[in-house]
Order: sequence, then C-alpha cells, then structure tokens
Amino acid sequence: MSGRLITLEGGEGAGKSTVLAALRARLAAHGIEVVVTREPGGTPFGEAARALVLDPARGDLCAESELLLMFAARAQHVHEVIRPALAAGRWVLSDRYTDASYAYQGGGRGQPFARIAELETWAAPVRADLTLLLDLPIADGLARAGARGQADRIEREATDFFERVRETYRARAATEPERFRVIDSSHPVEVVREAACAAIDAYVARVREAR
Amino acid sequence: MSGRLITLEGGEGAGKSTVLAALRARLAAHGIEVVVTREPGGTPFGEAARALVLDPARGDLCAESELLLMFAARAQHVHEVIRPALAAGRWVLSDRYTDASYAYQGGGRGQPFARIAELETWAAPVRADLTLLLDLPIADGLARAGARGQADRIEREATDFFERVRETYRARAATEPERFRVIDSSHPVEVVREAACAAIDAYVARVREAR
Ligand SMILES: Nc1ncnc2c1ncn2[C@@H]1O[C@H](COP(=O)(O)OP(=O)(O)OP(=O)(O)O)[C@@H](O)[C@H]1O
Ligand SMILES: Nc1ncnc2c1ncn2[C@@H]1O[C@H](COP(=O)(O)OP(=O)(O)OP(=O)(O)O)[C@@H](O)[C@H]1O
Ligand SMILES: [Mg+2]
Ligand SMILES: [Mg+2]
Repeated sequence: MSGRLITLEGGEGAGKSTVLAALRARLAAHGIEVVVTREPGGTPFGEAARALVLDPARGDLCAESELLLMFAARAQHVHEVIRPALAAGRWVLSDRYTDASYAYQGGGRGQPFARIAELETWAAPVRADLTLLLDLPIADGLARAGARGQADRIEREATDFFERVRETYRARAATEPERFRVIDSSHPVEVVREAACAAIDAYVARVREAR
Repeated sequence: MSGRLITLEGGEGAGKSTVLAALRARLAAHGIEVVVTREPGGTPFGEAARALVLDPARGDLCAESELLLMFAARAQHVHEVIRPALAAGRWVLSDRYTDASYAYQGGGRGQPFARIAELETWAAPVRADLTLLLDLPIADGLARAGARGQADRIEREATDFFERVRETYRARAATEPERFRVIDSSHPVEVVREAACAAIDAYVARVREAR
C-alpha cells in the first residue's frame, strides 16, 4: 500500500494534539505504522522557526514574514520528513499542515489566498489525502487553550481573528468534501476521539477497496 | 530631499562591510544622515533568521526553505526599517538586499528567477535606487573571507556555486546599468573605498540636479 498524508486541523484548543495518539493507535490496529509529525515544526529547522513565530516578544512580525516563515518551515518539513516517508510507502499523520496557512495567514491575517496557493505549488506540493477538521466555537477553544497557561503570540489575537480562522477552515472543508471530514469537537474527549477514529476506519476501508 | 535606498552587493569577502563606514561618512559630508543596515538581518527577527540560515549545523536546509527564510527576513526589514526610514525622508544604506537572493538562491541554488521576482513584488516591493556591486575573482574573495576564521553554512559551498553567484550579479548589473555601479574590488582597500565614494558623490550630484 502506498503512503498517505493525513492532516489534523482546527483552531486553538480544538483537540488536535489530544486525539493524535488515539489516531496513531487506530492506524496501528489496521496494520499501518504512521510517522507522526506537526507544524509548524517537524524538523530541527521547523522547530526553530516555530519558536520564532510563536514567541510573544515578536509582536511586530508583519503578515508577509509570518507567511514566508511558515512556508520555509513547511518546505523543509516536506523535503526532510513527508516526502521521504511517502516515497518509502509510509503513512504520515501531521498535526496541522497547509490548510492552517489558508486559515491563519489567509483568513486571519488577510494574506491573499492566491498568494498562499502559489507558495503551495512550489514549496509544499505534497497534498493531504485526508484532513480531519476539529471544529469548535471560538470561545470554547480559547477557554480550553487558556487553561494550559501562557498564551503564545498567535493565541493573543482578538476573537474576530479566530472567527475568521474558523470560517476559513469551514469554507475549505465545504469546497473539498472528498478530502475533509469535519468533526464536532464540542463533545467530550471520548466522543471526539471516537468520531476521529471512525473517520480513519472509513478512510482505511476506502483505500483498501480502491486497491 | 526624499529618501533613497542604496545597497552594497558582492560575493564573500568582496569588501562590502569594509567600505560601509567610508560610505556613511561620505554621505554625512554631503549633509545626508543614513540609516545603516544589513541583510540577512536588520531587525531582531531578521537577525534570528540570519543565525538560522548561516548555522553550519543546518547542512540540509533545502533551497526552497532558504529562499523563503531570506524573504521572511527581508519582508520584516522592509516593514520595520527601510520603508519607515524612506517615508521619513531618510536615506538607507544596506549591506546586501534583494539582488543577493537572485545571486545566491537563484544563481547559486538554482531557484527560478521568476519565483524570486514574484516574492519581490509582494514581500519586498521597495527597490534599491543605487547598487554598488563589489566585483572580485572568487578565489580572492574566499581567501579574504577565509582569513576571518570559521566558515558559515554558505561559505562552505564549492567554488562553482560562488562562480554562479558572481556571474548572476554581473548579469544583473549589465541589465540595469542605471542602477548598478560595478567596482573592481581586487584593488587595495583605499582604492576600492575611493571608487565606492566617487560613485556616491556622482549619485548625490545627480539626485540634487534632478530636484
Ligand atoms: N473534547 C474536549 N473536551 C474538553 N476538553 C478538551 C477536549 N479536547 C481537548 N481538550 C482539552 O483542551 C485543551 C486543548 O486541547 P489540545 O491541546 O488537544 O488542542 P489543540 O487543538 O492541539 O490546540 P493547539 O492548536 O493550541 O495545539 C487541552 O487541555 C485538552 O485536554
Ligand atoms: N580591497 C581589499 N583588499 C584586501 N583585503 C580586503 C579588501 N577589502 C576587504 N578586505 C579584507 O577582506 C576581508 C573581507 O572583507 P569584508 O568583510 O569587508 O567583505 P564582505 O564583502 O563584507 O564579506 P561578507 O560577504 O562575508 O560579509 C576582511 O578581512 C577585509 O579586511
Ligand atoms: Mg496542539
Ligand atoms: Mg560583510
């Protein structure tokens, strides 16, 4: 079976990191070992870039720089981790990927979607095969994330920024229903986890049928 | 008199940093206070990005990431330093700017010039008014730079990389003779410095005539 790229998306505190381990276990139960990774990050360079972009002291970072830095990290992530894994037939599960740039740097910061799409074509041409979007009202996500302590640079944004992020994610999901599964993340953890695992089961079944 | 952006370009060890102080003094003698800055760098974010890109441990950074990181730093440099200075009527003197991306990431690493030009239009739309290109045979520049000690990640490249960098700079100078002044940097320091100052004198005279 050839490799597949599965991505987890959603706003702050939507529960992406919380469901990750369960998804890995579920894939393993299907006999599929996954490479688990995250964005921004996933490589030593990407983690250094992540530290730069989330540093609350970097309050004045312009939207263009933020977008370029995200894609610098992503290009290295594709080059060093995602593409080699897929080429070796492995599956990859990433906590955020390119949709996050459309949502945050596009919807949130107002960078044109066409600009992001252009960067995607040459810096991150590997597309996700399946994307689980954990969707949650903004106030709930911020309350969950807030309970974790110190807010990073992006978590300090105002509510309308996060509303635009959420709307962009939902709009993308509506445009690409084949790729996206939207999961209502306002339910208790076990319910969300089970919904995410059910989406994985269905996807694995589809991939196996298609062979 | 409105602000002007003057840039210094050239390969490793060509003498850019060496002539910088003399150029600042010469502009001051003309009654023009300049903001002196450099790339990659020029802002706290840019200096952090510079440290990342020059780190010899970052041996595997892909060409796309390097290009995007350079433009992330540059966008912030334009946003935070160059544009505000020019808007206030000040002159800016930068040790490297966008031509360096054409030379290093384009000529050196093979990133398409059209890709760099596209990034330039939205991430660094401020164009240099005058560019002094310090031109020097590769072996001489590397010998000079080598005498400074530990080579950074880019200084570790092979000779043919630097040959492509030099040829790209020269080709750009040939295409934009109005903006570029090519200075033969193989002469002794005092001679190079005087040639650079003479180019500044001529430029200031031209700007003043044009008013
Ligand atoms: N369904 C849920 N119900 C209640 N709390 C949850 C739920 N899912 C996650 N949480 C809690 O909310 C917080 C944020 O969850 P998590 O870190 O998984 O979100 P995330 O989407 O990874 O956030 P970020 O985008 O900041 O990385 C954690 O404290 C987690 O325990
Ligand atoms: N014309 C010259 N003749 C001989 N040595 C020179 C000359 N110009 C500069 N040098 C010496 O060469 C070395 C490199 O010069 P400098 O640091 O100014 O180059 P640079 O163009 O700024 O290099 P880099 O691209 O690495 O920043 C320094 O040790 C400097 O003293
Ligand atoms: Mg998380
Ligand atoms: Mg220098």
